[in-house]
Amino acid sequence: MKIVIAPDSFKESLTALEVANAIEAGFKQIYPDAEYVKIPMADGGEGSVQSLVDATGGAFVEVAVTAPLGNPTTGFLGISGDKQTAFIEMAAASGLHLVPMAQRNPLNTTSYGTGELIKKALDLGVKKILLGIGGSATNDGGVGMLQALGISFKDSNGQEIGRGGGALSQIVSISTENLDSRLAQVTFEVACDVNNPLCGPTGATAIFGPQKGATPAMVAELDNGLAHFARQVEQQLGIAIADKPGAGAAGGMGGGLLLLPNAQLKAGVQIIIEATKLVEHVKDADLVITGEGRMDAQSIAGKTPVGVARTAKQFGKPVIAIVGCLREDYQVVYQHGIDAVFPIIRNLGTLEETLAKGQENLISSAVNIARLLYLNVKG
Amino acid sequence: MKIVIAPDSFKESLTALEVANAIEAGFKQIYPDAEYVKIPMADGGEGSVQSLVDATGGAFVEVAVTAPLGNPTTGFLGISGDKQTAFIEMAAASGLHLVPMAQRNPLNTTSYGTGELIKKALDLGVKKILLGIGGSATNDGGVGMLQALGISFKDSNGQEIGRGGGALSQIVSISTENLDSRLAQVTFEVACDVNNPLCGPTGATAIFGPQKGATPAMVAELDNGLAHFARQVEQQLGIAIADKPGAGAAGGMGGGLLLLPNAQLKAGVQIIIEATKLVEHVKDADLVITGEGRMDAQSIAGKTPVGVARTAKQFGKPVIAIVGCLREDYQVVYQHGIDAVFPIIRNLGTLEETLAKGQENLISSAVNIARLLYLNVKG
Repeated sequence: MKIVIAPDSFKESLTALEVANAIEAGFKQIYPDAEYVKIPMADGGEGSVQSLVDATGGAFVEVAVTAPLGNPTTGFLGISGDKQTAFIEMAAASGLHLVPMAQRNPLNTTSYGTGELIKKALDLGVKKILLGIGGSATNDGGVGMLQALGISFKDSNGQEIGRGGGALSQIVSISTENLDSRLAQVTFEVACDVNNPLCGPTGATAIFGPQKGATPAMVAELDNGLAHFARQVEQQLGIAIADKPGAGAAGGMGGGLLLLPNAQLKAGVQIIIEATKLVEHVKDADLVITGEGRMDAQSIAGKTPVGVARTAKQFGKPVIAIVGCLREDYQVVYQHGIDAVFPIIRNLGTLEETLAKGQENLISSAVNIARLLYLNVKG
Repeated sequence: MKIVIAPDSFKESLTALEVANAIEAGFKQIYPDAEYVKIPMADGGEGSVQSLVDATGGAFVEVAVTAPLGNPTTGFLGISGDKQTAFIEMAAASGLHLVPMAQRNPLNTTSYGTGELIKKALDLGVKKILLGIGGSATNDGGVGMLQALGISFKDSNGQEIGRGGGALSQIVSISTENLDSRLAQVTFEVACDVNNPLCGPTGATAIFGPQKGATPAMVAELDNGLAHFARQVEQQLGIAIADKPGAGAAGGMGGGLLLLPNAQLKAGVQIIIEATKLVEHVKDADLVITGEGRMDAQSIAGKTPVGVARTAKQFGKPVIAIVGCLREDYQVVYQHGIDAVFPIIRNLGTLEETLAKGQENLISSAVNIARLLYLNVKG
């Protein structure tokens, strides 16, 4: 029997690899001779680099970067075991957690550090870059990132514009002359699970600005700045970014990335499924086990287990999900390839206690699921 | 496919019948055409009458009884659908919950009301009495119960002794002349899951007295009273009760019952298994599902699911337990016939919220267990 174990992480409790290890440990008590293939998964959000490093036998690389407020900090990227692919999370250099609560103001925050991570990936000679853009502190249309990669944005005095979303309205000229030419030689996939346009009532600022610290007045100023940026890009470079689905992701980073050659916005879980070669692993599996920290109706919108399940169902494989908790409205996952779902909580306790027992509860669930399968009750 | 569903109640949340109904509802979503046999179970403790009434299509009967402190109250017994068997819980007439906290003092509390329930059962013309003796407020050696049934205990003045464990030391003569003669015509089974002797360091008083309100001084007095009672019984009736295993159950009720003809102490779950004809139902089942509110290492000591599992395993049947919660040390149940265990908690919440969601969580668990079985993954 071949069992593929391809879960997401259980946030704040276990990495995807730890989840896979626990499930394997439980199943091995009942099926010691099965063939186990563990594939730590992710959906392009937090923990994706960890999962991809684990899935490919890769490594983390620390990188000196510019934090959102301009101060130096240490970010990281991941590199695959074969050194061909770099894994980047925007939050590692430009994340909201890097800005003290009192200073959260997207007029001032720059995505420059993410550009430095991309540059580092190019320095490492990879052929492919996978970038997740969740959790950012920025609303600068990715201009900081583009500056780090060599695109120049000048104001009416011929000076390079400053840091943050507040500076976008000063752009009068854009030059790609010094853009890092190595970008044209790599595949560049961006995990993006939102379809928001760059500006307007459903744009980057209106929807995501407030959680980054934007007041209503700032939202108006920032939205105008992004609109000005998009107009300048269209006029000077001939690239229409404002209405592209996903342009509004990560404070307009989705739009800014469209200025780079080859950058493609894709569904996060799809990028991970391809990067981990999930299809090859599941096509001859007898059972696929996935999981995530919390399953609910939203799980069908780009989350890992449903992505794994859809892949498995291309080959008609049975799919079990083991989850940290299970919201009332989860049943819709049955229509998306998940055959059965088991939450792992065994006792009431505080969230902290429960997170601490994640591994133990997960092993216990896996043991009992395996025991139930082993019964082979006639149906 | 024949599925036998034989769970205990989930205390403070669902009766055993409600548990069985929920499990059936979940399974029927996946196996609509299976044959379902629902057998509400119990272990002789709280909820046993409810389960036996439900299991036999019986009824509750209200009975005017004497509460532990002598005041009148309304107790109850159950009668089977065929009217042949009475189901009694001692706690319904002599339970600790009938005594206000401040008045809990086993020197004063009598088991008289339980005798009245037994008398009522005889009045109803049953052929069999099943009595559960958990949860009592008394430490009177069952003397009150025996008085209600006609046995006389007199003091040195020739007066009937008073109420409670404090009066036992006054016994100088015992007469069974007026004992209700109908007791000799019935089968009388007493659910008793403790092996404590009547007196001494592991006796009724030392072990169970404090939880009924006995102070250390009272424990000594009550223990002496029970010892005196046992000596009188042995001298005058020739019945040795002091060292019988279980004599110390329910404040010596286990010992007092030995004065009655036919009364037999048995394991609670065994009585229920026989009363519900569980063997007949499981012997041609394809799957047996049981459950209880909380499963832990103690579950192997006379609790319902393990009793059900042992019965099922006489015929090699697969047994699944679905439980409210699952303590860390539960794994020993695997050695006692439980093949797989699933806790039903889906999310953290307060105990109250979680108990209120019992039915919903139980149905959800049953659905997913059925879905997993239905997968029929090759092992």
